[in-house]
Amino acid sequence: MSSSKKQVSSLQEKAGISPPEITSISAINQIQKNRKKQPSAEELIDGILNANRTSLSRGITLVESTNPEHAEKANEVIKGCLPYANKSIRIGITGVPGVGKSTFIETFGTFLTGLGKNVAVLAVDPSSSLSHGSILGDKTRMEELVKNENAFIRPSASGDTLGGVARKTRETIILCEAAGFDTILIETVGVGQSETAVHSMVDFFLLLKISGAGDELQGIKRGIMEMADAIVINKADGDNIKKATQAKLEFNRALHLFPPKKSTWQPKVTTCSAITHEGISEIWETISSYFEMTTNTGYFHEKRKDQNHFWMMETINEQLRLNFYNQPEIISQLEQNKKAVQNDELSPFAAAQNLLALYFGKDTK
Amino acid sequence: MSSSKKQVSSLQEKAGISPPEITSISAINQIQKNRKKQPSAEELIDGILNANRTSLSRGITLVESTNPEHAEKANEVIKGCLPYANKSIRIGITGVPGVGKSTFIETFGTFLTGLGKNVAVLAVDPSSSLSHGSILGDKTRMEELVKNENAFIRPSASGDTLGGVARKTRETIILCEAAGFDTILIETVGVGQSETAVHSMVDFFLLLKISGAGDELQGIKRGIMEMADAIVINKADGDNIKKATQAKLEFNRALHLFPPKKSTWQPKVTTCSAITHEGISEIWETISSYFEMTTNTGYFHEKRKDQNHFWMMETINEQLRLNFYNQPEIISQLEQNKKAVQNDELSPFAAAQNLLALYFGKDTK
Repeated sequence: MSSSKKQVSSLQEKAGISPPEITSISAINQIQKNRKKQPSAEELIDGILNANRTSLSRGITLVESTNPEHAEKANEVIKGCLPYANKSIRIGITGVPGVGKSTFIETFGTFLTGLGKNVAVLAVDPSSSLSHGSILGDKTRMEELVKNENAFIRPSASGDTLGGVARKTRETIILCEAAGFDTILIETVGVGQSETAVHSMVDFFLLLKISGAGDELQGIKRGIMEMADAIVINKADGDNIKKATQAKLEFNRALHLFPPKKSTWQPKVTTCSAITHEGISEIWETISSYFEMTTNTGYFHEKRKDQNHFWMMETINEQLRLNFYNQPEIISQLEQNKKAVQNDELSPFAAAQNLLALYFGKDTK
Repeated sequence: MSSSKKQVSSLQEKAGISPPEITSISAINQIQKNRKKQPSAEELIDGILNANRTSLSRGITLVESTNPEHAEKANEVIKGCLPYANKSIRIGITGVPGVGKSTFIETFGTFLTGLGKNVAVLAVDPSSSLSHGSILGDKTRMEELVKNENAFIRPSASGDTLGGVARKTRETIILCEAAGFDTILIETVGVGQSETAVHSMVDFFLLLKISGAGDELQGIKRGIMEMADAIVINKADGDNIKKATQAKLEFNRALHLFPPKKSTWQPKVTTCSAITHEGISEIWETISSYFEMTTNTGYFHEKRKDQNHFWMMETINEQLRLNFYNQPEIISQLEQNKKAVQNDELSPFAAAQNLLALYFGKDTK
């Protein structure tokens, strides 16, 4: 990140505030009762399929657990939910700090529940584990949505690697879908490669911007614009309307210079105000027509299949790398080889061969 | 590639035509004499450092060899050349078939030798090994440059993987630089991920285009435009001049919407004609000012260090993957797990865990 501004997820909250799903005494009683015994995988699956919030939260906690003993049970729950998942549209939302992501999600999410949708809001924020995990939604930023019975807000999982956070979020999506959520919003704060990860787990990728092509662009990484299925210029209210309309024209012109997407979808540029609600319904119209078009062409289903395959491969690659770089003999020789490469004493390939020979316990040349 | 047009490298040639470096009887005699005995690594290094073309060609052939017995000697030659390498500017040139890459390289390369530069032209074309490797430069397309004493043309290495071709090209760069070539042009035909690979081995990345934002854009992959340090609209001659100037304006406008590059370099858009030579010297001015700016800021050297590190990691990752996917037990279980993932019977992560457990011979859950 070239921006020195601290990344703040809209899904963070101050310590000590209760999780959003506990909104009534009866719910609290229910939880306390359930705590007495750990529910079985079957009970969790049952609860999730019956849209029980407590079961859903517990299932997600299980999926997010780093305790190896929980892994098998988590896999069982996911397996039980899988046949009931996938009936949703998954929407990724990204944008640099300051574009108003939280307010936008609050307004857009509330609009969607007004249409009868069940909305789950998740986040992918690998930095939350570095900042010791403020892992709950910021109530002060999403006041309405938190109280909304048809919305479920779950902050970013924590994890040491983006891969870990991504896995947990992907599996949380499955659980939310099995619990009947038909619209999944996934926010990312754009740390590291998190946009790319989110792009690889959603059907539709929305880039939030504000008008003016100046400093606020610095935070967004290269390549994001090409990923977007829609660019929405937010804060198009008051004095900003003219600037926002101008920005819309410019982005539209730029998008036409990009090569066509595999989906054959031509990305749309619109303006909106999360404050006045101007342009919010148009965004949903855009997403709906994308959904209709890609469902008709079969692209929607194909993309999900490709994404599943991608995540299977990604998980394998990540584990292979982790195993390699955690070997004591690699740890002891890595720096030395890196330095030789940097000082032009060794080619990158020769250095790689040295390390691989150590790892595989034989001369691989 | 969405384009159905066959990819043709400008560095391919018909079978039976002598390699460009054999231009005189004495050179042929020298080669025949040398063939009698295989030169040692020291002799090859000596020859390369003395700008001997035969030694250079032999060194490259060694680097490209798939014979495991040659690997050690190849590594020795590279190691001997490394301290004398790196004194060059490496320029990547990409563009879809039809933009006139060969004619451009012919004109641009000849222009550079006119400035006193020693120009090596390489290519990264993983498809050449699929089409049974027409691995020599197309003389009919680069008539002048092939005969030019200050130019050296070496077609794409062949190889089963892009990683293999990339490694060979990277090491060929080292050898060419040690032989005194100060300007390295690396062409890519844009197959698979080859542009990304070339982008990761050059200092400056040039995207060739022609005017008109229609069908010819289809061939270029997403993300390439953001990689470019310069976009050159070729074929700006005759009736095309007006259209090319208009395209230049449009691309300039679009590039300003991109986030700034880490180098802080603002990509330039220019027009040129490889036929009339209009605009060719301006391209070199652009590259020179990039070189000056990034050398002053230290970015030039930093980027090369990063690239070395990147290729070390890439090589390791590729070998880890190859080893994994070549295990008989993985081969036998991969399809079954893939299918279960595609049919939503198994999450991508559970499938990955299954396969990893097989590979590591233990339950990794």
